Amino acid sequence: MIELKKPNVVILGAGYGGLMTAVRLQKFVGVNEANITLVNKNNYHYETTWLHEASAGTLHHDRVRYPIADVIDRSKVQFVQDTVVKVVPQEKRVILQNGELTYDYLVIALGFESETFGIKGLKEYAFSIANVNAARQIREHIEYQFATYHTEEEKRDERLTIVVGGAGFTGIEFLGELANRIPELCREYDVDPKKVRIICVEAAPTALPGFDPELVEYAVSLLERKGVEFKIGTAIKECTPEGIVVAKGDEVEEIKAGTVVWAAGVRGSYVIDESGFEAMRGRVKVDPFLRAPGYDNVFIVGDCSLMINEETNRPYPPTAQIAMQQGELCAKNLAVLIREQGELQPFKPDIKGTVCSLGHDDAIGVVFGKKMWGAKASFMKKMVDNRALYLIGGPSLVMKKGKFKFF
Amino acid sequence: MIELKKPNVVILGAGYGGLMTAVRLQKFVGVNEANITLVNKNNYHYETTWLHEASAGTLHHDRVRYPIADVIDRSKVQFVQDTVVKVVPQEKRVILQNGELTYDYLVIALGFESETFGIKGLKEYAFSIANVNAARQIREHIEYQFATYHTEEEKRDERLTIVVGGAGFTGIEFLGELANRIPELCREYDVDPKKVRIICVEAAPTALPGFDPELVEYAVSLLERKGVEFKIGTAIKECTPEGIVVAKGDEVEEIKAGTVVWAAGVRGSYVIDESGFEAMRGRVKVDPFLRAPGYDNVFIVGDCSLMINEETNRPYPPTAQIAMQQGELCAKNLAVLIREQGELQPFKPDIKGTVCSLGHDDAIGVVFGKKMWGAKASFMKKMVDNRALYLIGGPSLVMKKGKFKFF
Repeated sequence: MIELKKPNVVILGAGYGGLMTAVRLQKFVGVNEANITLVNKNNYHYETTWLHEASAGTLHHDRVRYPIADVIDRSKVQFVQDTVVKVVPQEKRVILQNGELTYDYLVIALGFESETFGIKGLKEYAFSIANVNAARQIREHIEYQFATYHTEEEKRDERLTIVVGGAGFTGIEFLGELANRIPELCREYDVDPKKVRIICVEAAPTALPGFDPELVEYAVSLLERKGVEFKIGTAIKECTPEGIVVAKGDEVEEIKAGTVVWAAGVRGSYVIDESGFEAMRGRVKVDPFLRAPGYDNVFIVGDCSLMINEETNRPYPPTAQIAMQQGELCAKNLAVLIREQGELQPFKPDIKGTVCSLGHDDAIGVVFGKKMWGAKASFMKKMVDNRALYLIGGPSLVMKKGKFKFF
Repeated sequence: MIELKKPNVVILGAGYGGLMTAVRLQKFVGVNEANITLVNKNNYHYETTWLHEASAGTLHHDRVRYPIADVIDRSKVQFVQDTVVKVVPQEKRVILQNGELTYDYLVIALGFESETFGIKGLKEYAFSIANVNAARQIREHIEYQFATYHTEEEKRDERLTIVVGGAGFTGIEFLGELANRIPELCREYDVDPKKVRIICVEAAPTALPGFDPELVEYAVSLLERKGVEFKIGTAIKECTPEGIVVAKGDEVEEIKAGTVVWAAGVRGSYVIDESGFEAMRGRVKVDPFLRAPGYDNVFIVGDCSLMINEETNRPYPPTAQIAMQQGELCAKNLAVLIREQGELQPFKPDIKGTVCSLGHDDAIGVVFGKKMWGAKASFMKKMVDNRALYLIGGPSLVMKKGKFKFF
């Protein structure tokens, strides 16, 4: 019996980049043109850029995720729920925790992991806004600190101190949600709001490095008005079960805190290192077609890929926006390869802007080169969030999971 | 200037007994007849008999409490929010954490505390359904265990094990709520319900000792169907940070558990011991007028008073029903003393029945000598709960905090 060999396309990860590759590819190719397999640890996709809300408890984690089955076409894409252990690119194999796959074309879209830069104790004692599991644990941990406060004979005010490591994008967005959440927690657990401290520690000389200084000023003073204390130009030296040790120049200070959330470092997946790709912190410098050096059949999209912005001579940041654009291009290029017709297109990011939320009711941003803040920026942020849903799941997903003004 | 000396009445505690004393006394006497002071740790009263629901997370703790200000008449009763340290009955003084009061008549209604009978580790590592603070901590502790489960590389199923020490009234009612709550927690945290264990350990040879055996059978098999494992005739030997050690005869077993709730022992307040009253586990054997031996002006109502049921030759159980009846009588007798007219009446409990809930949807009970179970008993339980509200706060409190069929 002779069978026409259909190429095996394997996509690792159903984050922004991987899921976008899958949903676009299932449109571009027919059932008989390729075997497409999507591998993901969970049977759901989550909005990484919304996790700070689930972590603070301002948005339920079920609002932040949706079943992968809702957006893939089962007749074209096979879904495997498993964890990727490593890729063996020389043998075109992927080793999973509970199995193995072979591929003709591979898309690695395994997302980010937390990077603690070797700071002592961070891995053990700090939380990281890494995924849905971590987010709801952070939410519950903070809530437990508040719930415990009044049960102790001797009140320990440090239970009510939350340290956020990093005033980058994630740190600031998380602070915005926390500042809104704290009054609710105080009411819930009869805690005097004056006892609560939210401290943000940032090693760089400014919050939101790279952002427009006027907007940074707006964000910082808004958060300060809501009770956040900033320690800028201050490095976390160590994290302990009791809190953190920070240093500003020669001044060393211990801050006792019931909760420490590390939001200052991300890296690509450890699977990249495990698989022997040449990489820096789990990120592979890909060619213009998003391919790993030396492997024409391995594409890397999202947080594990590294691409230099020639205008600034610095890498593009690992954002959802770029991951989705890469997924879309990757799907197009895969279709070219599968059909053996047409030409591969190089990746050209189209950065429409950046909006950083400051709670559900405020934000700052630059969109199409225009600075904005307040209600306008906050509205724009919700549009950005809804757009991610739209691009992957169309209008029905926006209706199900979208953010509108009143909820 | 000559001033007519009004007697000082001080009521310690705003639980069922103390609050009932206060609200009845404010009706019985006029503004110029007495100075009435009510002392309580919190500015709210809580329904002790509903705390198992707040602990399991099936009823919000705000549903279980109401402001004391809502039921006392400020023109007649002065409210002091403070913690009682001790009573000096020889000097008619009460020492508070932040002050001192003198009295002519004193009502001690300080409620119960947990009694661990010296079992090693229980005080340190087990929770006790003692008050609103403790209840919401238990709720959050259990939730945190579920939230943490999936964040750990190596899954620790014992996080999902909950041990309840004691199959008495509180233990059984708490198990009923827990059994209803677990499926919700499993959905919330993507936990396989098969991984969850609820284990009830009871040293006595039966659950609910003293209850009708047929009803006990109904309760136990209902809870077993909902997944509760009973270890009857089994004693807790020790509680550790990892769980408990139990023994049945010579057989010793270690049970690893993320949560241990001790619901098997109560005693009167430690203030009783501190104050030098003759007592057994903080309970004073009072005279028929509820007075402490040797002090005609000190009344003790509720869990700190001990009275023998002459029919059974055993003490009456420390119930809300009896505490409220004692409060009512105590107020009447205080009015007699204040006015120096009439005669003191002895306390005669009027036990209408006992209903033990098995979750919001089932119960067992004996009411006016009639056995009941299922929906009928469950309805009766809600009526019992509403009656406590009615007796203290009238119909408006029932409307605000009452339990009706649909919520």
